[in-house]
Amino acid sequence: MIRLNIFYPNTEGSRFDMAYYLDVHMPMARRLLGEACRRIDVERGVAGAEPGTPATYIMSCHMQFESIDAFMAVWADAGPALGGDIPNYTDVQPVIQFSEPVAFD
Amino acid sequence: MIRLNIFYPNTEGSRFDMAYYLDVHMPMARRLLGEACRRIDVERGVAGAEPGTPATYIMSCHMQFESIDAFMAVWADAGPALGGDIPNYTDVQPVIQFSEPVAFD
Repeated sequence: MIRLNIFYPNTEGSRFDMAYYLDVHMPMARRLLGEACRRIDVERGVAGAEPGTPATYIMSCHMQFESIDAFMAVWADAGPALGGDIPNYTDVQPVIQFSEPVAFD
Repeated sequence: MIRLNIFYPNTEGSRFDMAYYLDVHMPMARRLLGEACRRIDVERGVAGAEPGTPATYIMSCHMQFESIDAFMAVWADAGPALGGDIPNYTDVQPVIQFSEPVAFD
């Protein structure tokens, strides 16, 4: 199982339309990625580690797929619409990576 | 509910002792943070978004607490031992922030 992590930097002076992201973009992602996407978690940055400092990322999104190949297969169809929708809610360049959950506890 | 996100940058030439982190540091964290820490998720970076590129973060850790205050209360005791253990597994400076899970789905 793999997680696709998408981190939106909290850059000063940049734009991030939280309402559009949550009400329009993410439902679109949920619909277009279909059953290949096993789970979606969304997190809003609240604060940095030191009191009074801002969060490094204003928003992050974590999507579970069976494998990178399973993601690539559905992304071939869903990618253009989802990628093309990004300018509608932000002008920052997200940091994107694949991660593997490690058993713990 | 709040998540403490700790991201370890995948810096070329840096050191990250995966075995020590998973077998020694994280069990220490689990023990010292006690019941205040509701859940811990650990993720290992696998790849960047573009084929053949490295993950931005080699490891990330996500710990759930009832609130930032609940974290601060337990961190006052656990912080020195946990922070002091970091050089035993890495020489990179982690990116740390608090995030709030957003209801979705």
